[in-house]
Order: sequence, then C-alpha cells, then structure tokens
Amino acid sequence: MKLDKLVGERFKERPSDCIVDSHALMVRGGYMKALSNGIFSSYMPLKRVTRKIEQIIREEMDAVDGQEVMFPVVMPATIWQESGRYESIGKEMARFNDRSGSPLVLGMTHEEAAVHLVRDCAQSYNKYPFMIYQIQTKFRDEARPRAGLIRVREFTMKDAYSFHTSQEDLEEYYQRCHKAYERIYARAGIPEVVSVASDSGMMGGSISHEFMLLTPIGEDSIAICTDCDYRANMEAAENICPNETDAVSQEMELVHTPEISSIEDLCAFLKLPAEKTCKAVVYQRNEDDHYIVLFLRGDMEANETKLTNHLGYGIHPAVITEESGLCAGFIGPKGLCEGVTVLYDLSLKGLNNLACGGNQADHHFTGLDMARDLGEVAYKDFAKIREGGICPRCGKKTITVSRGIEVGNIFQLGTKYTKSMNMTYTTQDGKQEHPIMGCYGIGVGRLAAAVCETHHDEYGPIWPMAIAPWQVHLCAMRADDPQVREYADKLYEELKAMGIEVIYDDRKVSAGVMFSDADLLGVPLRVIVSPRNLKQEVLEVSTRDKSMKDSISMHGAAQAIAELVAKIR
Amino acid sequence: MKLDKLVGERFKERPSDCIVDSHALMVRGGYMKALSNGIFSSYMPLKRVTRKIEQIIREEMDAVDGQEVMFPVVMPATIWQESGRYESIGKEMARFNDRSGSPLVLGMTHEEAAVHLVRDCAQSYNKYPFMIYQIQTKFRDEARPRAGLIRVREFTMKDAYSFHTSQEDLEEYYQRCHKAYERIYARAGIPEVVSVASDSGMMGGSISHEFMLLTPIGEDSIAICTDCDYRANMEAAENICPNETDAVSQEMELVHTPEISSIEDLCAFLKLPAEKTCKAVVYQRNEDDHYIVLFLRGDMEANETKLTNHLGYGIHPAVITEESGLCAGFIGPKGLCEGVTVLYDLSLKGLNNLACGGNQADHHFTGLDMARDLGEVAYKDFAKIREGGICPRCGKKTITVSRGIEVGNIFQLGTKYTKSMNMTYTTQDGKQEHPIMGCYGIGVGRLAAAVCETHHDEYGPIWPMAIAPWQVHLCAMRADDPQVREYADKLYEELKAMGIEVIYDDRKVSAGVMFSDADLLGVPLRVIVSPRNLKQEVLEVSTRDKSMKDSISMHGAAQAIAELVAKIR
Repeated sequence: MKLDKLVGERFKERPSDCIVDSHALMVRGGYMKALSNGIFSSYMPLKRVTRKIEQIIREEMDAVDGQEVMFPVVMPATIWQESGRYESIGKEMARFNDRSGSPLVLGMTHEEAAVHLVRDCAQSYNKYPFMIYQIQTKFRDEARPRAGLIRVREFTMKDAYSFHTSQEDLEEYYQRCHKAYERIYARAGIPEVVSVASDSGMMGGSISHEFMLLTPIGEDSIAICTDCDYRANMEAAENICPNETDAVSQEMELVHTPEISSIEDLCAFLKLPAEKTCKAVVYQRNEDDHYIVLFLRGDMEANETKLTNHLGYGIHPAVITEESGLCAGFIGPKGLCEGVTVLYDLSLKGLNNLACGGNQADHHFTGLDMARDLGEVAYKDFAKIREGGICPRCGKKTITVSRGIEVGNIFQLGTKYTKSMNMTYTTQDGKQEHPIMGCYGIGVGRLAAAVCETHHDEYGPIWPMAIAPWQVHLCAMRADDPQVREYADKLYEELKAMGIEVIYDDRKVSAGVMFSDADLLGVPLRVIVSPRNLKQEVLEVSTRDKSMKDSISMHGAAQAIAELVAKIR
Repeated sequence: MKLDKLVGERFKERPSDCIVDSHALMVRGGYMKALSNGIFSSYMPLKRVTRKIEQIIREEMDAVDGQEVMFPVVMPATIWQESGRYESIGKEMARFNDRSGSPLVLGMTHEEAAVHLVRDCAQSYNKYPFMIYQIQTKFRDEARPRAGLIRVREFTMKDAYSFHTSQEDLEEYYQRCHKAYERIYARAGIPEVVSVASDSGMMGGSISHEFMLLTPIGEDSIAICTDCDYRANMEAAENICPNETDAVSQEMELVHTPEISSIEDLCAFLKLPAEKTCKAVVYQRNEDDHYIVLFLRGDMEANETKLTNHLGYGIHPAVITEESGLCAGFIGPKGLCEGVTVLYDLSLKGLNNLACGGNQADHHFTGLDMARDLGEVAYKDFAKIREGGICPRCGKKTITVSRGIEVGNIFQLGTKYTKSMNMTYTTQDGKQEHPIMGCYGIGVGRLAAAVCETHHDEYGPIWPMAIAPWQVHLCAMRADDPQVREYADKLYEELKAMGIEVIYDDRKVSAGVMFSDADLLGVPLRVIVSPRNLKQEVLEVSTRDKSMKDSISMHGAAQAIAELVAKIR
C-alpha cells in the first residue's frame, strides 16, 4: 500500500473530546471516524488490525473445537419473549417493527439465537458437547458511550456458546476456553491480561470470569489480593467485615441533631467514627418506584449489583418524596415507616452503641444495639469491598483495588436458556434433560483499543507484529532522488512478492511529517531508504518501540527485513 | 472436522416451503435455518462457503486498489436526510429511535456513510482516485422475501465506492471493476455470469450493469439478442416498435360493446388483432393517489420502471373509484376526464384505425387516428421489450427473454451523493468540484445460493473446489473394523497436517446414509476407506460431480489426494 493513497487524515492535535489515549491516537492516526455517538466507521488501518484480531480469535476457537456459524443481527422478538429477556432487558436493546408490524430487535448477544439454531438438531446425548461461535456486528444502545472503542453502541464481537450434558463437562470445557482466551491475549500482544471472578449480571448463571487489562483508564474496578491469587470484579467481590461489639451496650437515646443529615456531619457532631454509625441508602424498584432501604455500617458503600441480584429486579437511587413516609437524611432502622423493603448489610451484624437516623427531622438515635433493638433480622453481604479490605480467600487485609478494561468474559450459564426455550435432549437412559450452556465473548474493537491503550507512546500506537496494520513501514526519503526512487520501488515490490505487508511512503514531504505519520500508524518495523544511506550501501531499520535501531546492507535487504519481521513480536 | 460432531440436521424430504432447489438443498443439508421471514442463521458448512467467497471478493477488490474499511450497520438518520434518501426510500429501510429519541436507520446500502467517511480527508485532487469497500451485514425490509438466500431481508454484502475527478477516470475504473467482477465469478465457479445494462433505480446515476446468472428460477428478466452482444435488464431495455399506419383512416365511431372490458374480449368482439387497439393502464401516485393513465398498443405491456423514471415519483396499480371520473374497462384517450396525468407509449405513434375505450360504460370507439384525433402529443418508450422483439443495437427481430439471478451490480453514480452531501475537492487550478462516484455491490449469500442453484443434482450441491465447505470428504466404511479405523484416522491426521480441509465421517451408519450426507455437503473430492478396499491396498476416490471415479494406492495416499485437490476445480 502506498501511503499517499491511504484514505484517512493524520494530524497532530489531540481532539478535545478524546478522554483516553487510545481514542485520541486512533482518531489522530486515521483509524476511525465517529458517525454518531458511540458509532464509528473504520478506515483501512483499523480494519486491518481488527481482521487480524478476528483471525487469531477464529484460530483459537477452532482449536477448542468451535464451529463457526452466523446469527442474524436482526431477530424477531419472539425468541426473546421465550427466554423472558424481551421484558427484562431495558433500553439498551434496540427495538423496531418491520413493515408488517412484527416486533424485531437488534442482537446485543445471541443466547436465544444459539438455542434456536441447535435445539432441533441436538436431541440425543451423543451429539454433545459442542460449541458454536460467530464473529458478528452487535448493537447495544449504551446510555453513555465513552472512550472511543472502549464503550461503543455498535461493535464487532466474537460470541461463542457451548452445550453440555453435565456440569462437569461444562466446567472442563470452561477451563479449555479459559486457556484459549489466554492464548488469544498473548498472541494479540497483551499477555498481561488477568481473569477475575465476576458477577454474571443479565446473562444468568453463577460462575463467570472477566478478562481484564489493568489500566487506570479502565471502567471496571477489580479487587486484587497482593498476597494470594484472589482477583474479582468489585461487583462480585465478597466484602468481609470483622464486627467488633462493645462490652457494654448503652441505652438508646433520641438526640437533637439540627440540620445534620449526612454521616460525615453526624460523626463530627457526635464525635464518633463512621464505624459506630448505621447508614441508610435508599433505592426504588424500576417497575413501580417501591422503596428499598438498605442499612449498612457508616464507613461502607452499597454494592448495587449485590442488591439487584438479591432482589431479583432492577432498582435506581431513590427520590424521596414527602408521601413516602421516609424522612430523608434521618432514616434509621428503629421506628421506620411501614411499606418499604428493609435490608441489613453484614457489616452491622452484632454491633452496638451505634448512631442512626431517628426517622424524624433533625433527630438521630444513639446507643442502637442491633440485636437488642431490632431482634432477629437477616444480614447479607450488600457492601463494596474496599482498598485495604480483607481478602475473601486468604483472610489477610491485603486487598488493593485496580482499574481495568474488560477485554473478554466467559460464563457458565446453566440451563437458564435451554429451560426457558424448551431445549431438551434424550439421555442414554431415555430421559429428557435440558442441556447446560456456557458462553464466551470478546469484543474485537475494544481489544484493539485496549492494546493501543497499553502499547503506545505520545506519538502513536506501538502495535504488536501479530495485529499491526502492516508489518513494514518503508520510508523513501527524497524519493525525487533517482537512486532512492529506483531502489525503494524495487524493495517495495520484492517485499510484497515475499508476502510481507508493506506500507510505502514515497511522498515528497519532510522527514518530520514522514516519521510522525509512521509513528501514528505504529507499524513495528521501519525501513528508511535515503541518499546518504545508499551512499554507504546501507538501509536504516528500527522498531517502533525504539528497542532496536540498526543498519543493514542494501544488498539482499529484502531477505534481512523478512527475517526481522519473523523475529519481532 | 468429524462429521458426527457437525451441528445441523441433514434429511431427505424436500421442505414444502422451498420453491427453489438451492433453498431446499441448503435446508436439507444443514446449511441454514430460518429465524424469521427472510432472516437466516448459518451453520458451519454455509459459513465456510461464504467466508471463502468473501476472501475471493476481498482479494479481487484489493487487486483493483480497494481499501477495506467498515461502515456501521446502524446509522443516524441525519446523513440520509442530507442525501434526501431518508424521505425517498420507503418501508424497505428499517428505522427506529435510540434511547434519546434520535432517529436511526439500518444500512441497506452505504453511499451516505462512504461520503461521510471520506469527505474531510479527500479535499485535494491529488488524493484521487480511490476506492473503499466493506463486507458487512445489511438489512432491507423486503416485502416478499423468497427462495431462501436469493431474496432475504438480512444479508452480507460487499459494497465498494470509488471517487474520481473526471468521468473518464470513473469510466476507466468502472471497466477495471467490471473485469474484477468477472474474475470473482470465475473463481467462485460460475464463469457463465453475464453482465447486462440495467436501470439504476434508487441508486441514482445513469450507467449501470447487473451481473446475471441465467437460470429459470431467477427473479429478473433479461433481454438478450441472439445475434449481437446486446444484453439488458427488461427494466432498462429499450422497446422498439415499428408502427404501421393504414393507408386510409376510417371515421371515429362509438360502438356499443356490452360487458366487453378487456382487450382480449374487445379484439374477439370487433374481430381485430390486438395491434389495432389502444389499451389504457392506470396507476396512482403513492403520495396522494393522483391518477396516471398510460395508453399503449393493445399487444404491449407497461414497464413500471420506465414510467417511474419518467414521472420521478413512486406509483402503484390503480384502484379506480367512482369519484375518479374514470370508467374502468372503457378508458380511452378521446373524451377522457380531466385531472389525470396522461402518457402515450411510442408503440401508438402514427397509428390509425384503432379501437379504444369510449369513456362510458359498455362503449368503445373504433377508427381512432392518433395524429388526427389527439393532435400533437408526446410519445415515449414506456413498454416492455418482448420475446421476438427488435434488438436496440443490431435492429434485428432477435430478442429472447431469459430469467436470471442478479449476483452483483455496478453503478456510475455521478455526483448525486457528493453534491447533496456537499463533498468537494480542490482542483489543480484551485477550483472547488464535487467528486464523481461509482459503486459496486455483491451479495455474498445470494452468490452462494446462485452457485448452488446452477451446480447441484437431486442429491445435493456440487460445490466448486474454491468455495466448497471442505476439500475432501473422507468416509470410513465400517469404522468398527480396526484396520479401517487405524488407517482412516491416520489419513485424516496426515491430510489435516498438510493443510487440506477434511470432513471425516467415521460414524457407524450404513453406506447409504454416509453417501447421502456426503452428497448434501457437496464436497468436491470423496475418499472412501473400506475393509474391501484395504484388502486390495487401495482407496476409492471420486468427484462429487461424478466426472471421476478411481482407485489410488493406500500407500502415500495423502500426497495423491493433495494432488487431486490441487487439480480439481
């Protein structure tokens, strides 16, 4: 490819709407252009990167006996009604009616389509296990697309679905897929990706893992133990809280606390640490705005995912009205109004001498003893794990919280979809059973962005050889010099004939422009032909990551370059 | 791939809803499954066929300097409003609002997205010409999906867009692309595809060609001259009609024709040939149901495409109401009511002694002389060319009408999109001009179906080697025989190691089941390992098209098979 014909603009200024580096560099380098909020077109360099990523994924999926199939982007609502997700998924699913008025949806995931495809042809146990996958466009109407390709509305995804006749078989395959994912990240140049236990969210099932590339710009928070190998998404990480009970319980007392409505102010006013308070966090059910009041220790924060999983329905932070019976800023467990759902976090279990809301304006209680004053109530883990918290595996206070980009996920789905969509098979004993499913996703564009995010300098991406848009960036300095022109043209043809992917810059531009464009394209190996070099019968070769800079003989250079391409990772 | 693990059912009965063979065989062979009307999921065999077709297309597009890019499936309405097509395209475009209420559409073609992608980065003449293409999912809400993959609602398409600074340059590139298309069809195994001049329809522009695979099940009718190389879509083919005028014009006379409301009945009643009648065909404007009356010679048929192109708006066959002023069955040009648009086909020009409607119930005129009785009216070509009609190129009565499947199309778009979307570049003289565009499409799934439609027998598809799902179908007859098992397993591994694509059937099923499954998968080369063969130290090899059946030595068989794979087309 000749650079002067490459469609797409490269420029120096960081666009003001780019928060993360990968987004800025991919816009500056002519990789993509936004067509709408969270919807991008790709130019050739990005398309080449994503195609290579797709091929790596395809090879690794084939290596774990995956069968590549294709599901539609546009699906009838009927199969989503079968599974129940037509109702349970909210605005992120795009819906429309076709010309005959039938409701259709755009695929944001394809469990339903996978079950539909195989339920008629996998009716005997001896067809199992099997895995089908596709690499296809998906649409998810995200409320807040951000960070370029990190969180978009339209994206290309590899999604795989496996079907099994026993939990053991699923678990064995799940491990094989986990290893395949590790190989995919290693081959794509980010072997540092870690897997963390996660919450399955709307996918159903219980065991699941996210693959995380740790970076400060990540959207997800991950709890990592610095001592053992415990790693979990904050959403899923168990919060362990050793509760210390005072030897002597004080009496409860209603205290006048004028205009003291936050835990912080209360602690200052009463001269108490936050650990000696009982905080209320209030939500409402999405469906009907019914109130849910969660009580937790004052220094803890609510984990909405744990709450939602417990409740089994969607919630949002409450707007507390006068009619609710709740006294905003002064809500406590003692004397609370009726008709609200009340939950207690484990952090409160057994505590005494706590301050809490008095359920009337400008008043709090002191001396709350959970057991004495509230009797037998259920406590459950509803709080977020914190930096310095206790590791649920090794029990030490060694939790750190890092941020990461999720670059893949795998789920043990169980029979959620095969049951609801009535997929069965006949066992060896002639019984009818529902197959057990696993599912396995990787977003292709996000993976490209994640590699760029962790492999770049201020001048551009530093693509690993395996996914770089081209393997060699050939610069002909002073292409108006006949000797340079002749030599560089010939080298370009030789390299192409050897199957090397070359981007060839023979423009009449300054070295500065040439090199800054090369930096933005991020091609691993750069080869420079110049009048001065040729006089010494050499070419200059260097790597984009600056780890190597060398001269090679101008004679037999194509072979030497091919060897470098094979060597550089 | 082991056949017993291949997901998808194969069966013998032709499904009752399959009108065409390719549809029936692809359902019977486990290639695809309908998820909704005109929306299919693909199993592995079809996915492998379409991926190979895509790769052939990609290589040929790259060979004509195409740059692979990617446009979104979901696009904002805004760019379609810019081009004017948001209004002009009807129900076939799927539309919905996102969560913020902004209107979005699903891409059925990507001219607008192409202009959007390049209009900021091709502002100087020296960036031209260039071509960008993508292979991507499209959705078109067809009113009548039919014939399996021939006419669907969701499909994968290669669409390419070229940009030029002169009509000459476009035409030169158009020819290069035409040749690339010929290579694509030849490589995909259907070199018999012909290109025909076509009507550009909603794409705009004037010159365009369709690539047609001639088959009786095709949806399109093509006028072909048996004497010269004229070929055109019926929609576009000029209809030439030598008009014979009688020497003596009779007087016009109103005749009582009770209950005679068709041309056929009228001819029988008056004992006239259809050529001596003037027929009325009535349409209504889609927008407001305004009436359009077309008069043509009684033996001609209206060509709606020519009508629509002339009128510049959409029309539909009329429902004639009493209020319209039209007298259904008795409409004629003389004494016609006011307020309707009247058009005359060239076939009527200069004719006399015609019978036509009397514009009152049960009455016709005879003796109509077009020139004498209607004065100076405009005549234009609005009729369909017919079998035995006159070739517009060589002038002989040598037109035959064949049916074909459109497997690709190319258009010279002109500046329709660059003008409406305000894309300009600076010429060498410093002037601002709109680039001239071409566009080039191929439907991948339809191409696969077209190959199947023209390359099959009653037992299944006969895939050309270049796009076959696998290259070798290895059958181990009596795999319970240890010698067969050992030999076939080893051969399978050897072939795989050589990079040969093998589907391996080692099931304990009858030869009949094995062979009928192999027929349905349509793999070009079949290799049979059986106890009887092994006793004679041979394997049986045969081609799916039955052109070759042979024995090869069981020793060094892998090498011999690889050579056959390389040889068979």
